Amino acid sequence: MKQALSFVTLGVADVAAARRFYVEGLGWTPTFEDDEVVMLQMAPGVLLALWGAADLAADAGVDVEPGPGAVALAHNVGSADEVHAVVARWRKAGGTVLKEPAHQPLFDGTSAYVADPNGHRWEIAHNPGWSVDDDGTVTLS
Amino acid sequence: MKQALSFVTLGVADVAAARRFYVEGLGWTPTFEDDEVVMLQMAPGVLLALWGAADLAADAGVDVEPGPGAVALAHNVGSADEVHAVVARWRKAGGTVLKEPAHQPLFDGTSAYVADPNGHRWEIAHNPGWSVDDDGTVTLS
Repeated sequence: MKQALSFVTLGVADVAAARRFYVEGLGWTPTFEDDEVVMLQMAPGVLLALWGAADLAADAGVDVEPGPGAVALAHNVGSADEVHAVVARWRKAGGTVLKEPAHQPLFDGTSAYVADPNGHRWEIAHNPGWSVDDDGTVTLS
Repeated sequence: MKQALSFVTLGVADVAAARRFYVEGLGWTPTFEDDEVVMLQMAPGVLLALWGAADLAADAGVDVEPGPGAVALAHNVGSADEVHAVVARWRKAGGTVLKEPAHQPLFDGTSAYVADPNGHRWEIAHNPGWSVDDDGTVTLS
C-alpha cells in the first residue's frame, strides 16, 4: 500500500463555529465548504476537514470522544518571531494557548502549543534543523 | 499566517510497538527514527510522527487522553478493490476494522474505517470525485 495521507478530519461540535475560527479568525481559505463540512488544503494532496463529530461517529460507526485524544498537529514556521506572531493570531482568534512560546531543547528551536475551540491541539514550531526540499521531501538534521 | 500542516503526531503507548505496526506491518518507510520517535513522510512537507503519549503530554504541558479523540486521518486510494486490499493489509498487520468496506453515499464511492493498535482512526476511501493535480492541488467534484 502507498504511504500517503489524504485528509485530517477534526470532529467539531459546530461546523459554523469551527469555520469562523479557522477561516475568519486565522484567515485560512477553504477548498470546499457547505453546511456540513469545511475542507482546507494544508499541503500538496492533503485537506483538513472540519466535520461534525456526530457525523464522523455515524460515518465510522463508532463512538467519538470530543477533543484531540492523543493527537497533535503541527505548523512549522521560519523563525522564533514567527512562532510568537502565529500564537498571537491564534489567541486573538479565540484559541487557547496551552504552552507559551519557549525554547525547545528537543530540536534547539522554539515551540508553543495552542488549541482550537474544540480542543484540537497544534504545535507552532520553529525547528532550525527541519527543511522541505523543492520536491516536498522533509529533511531533519 | 501560512495555511500549512507540517506534522501529524500520534501519541502512542509504546513507540517500538507502533513502529512494528506501521513499518513492518504496513510496510511504510521512516524518514527518521530513534528510540523515542518514528517519523514517516506522508505527503510533500508532511511527516507522521509516532511519539510516546507521555512525551507528547510533557511537551505540551497538558494531560493527553489515549486514543484518537475526535480525529480521523484518511488514506485515499484509486479503486474499491484497493480499499478492500488496504483494509486486509491493516487487519493482517494487527489493526482493527471499525467499519468494513461499504458503499459511501456521501461521495458515491467506497470507504472503510480502521484503527491502529493505539486506537488511532483512519478512513480508507475510494472517492471518484477526489483528485490531486500535478501541483498537489486537491479537487473535489
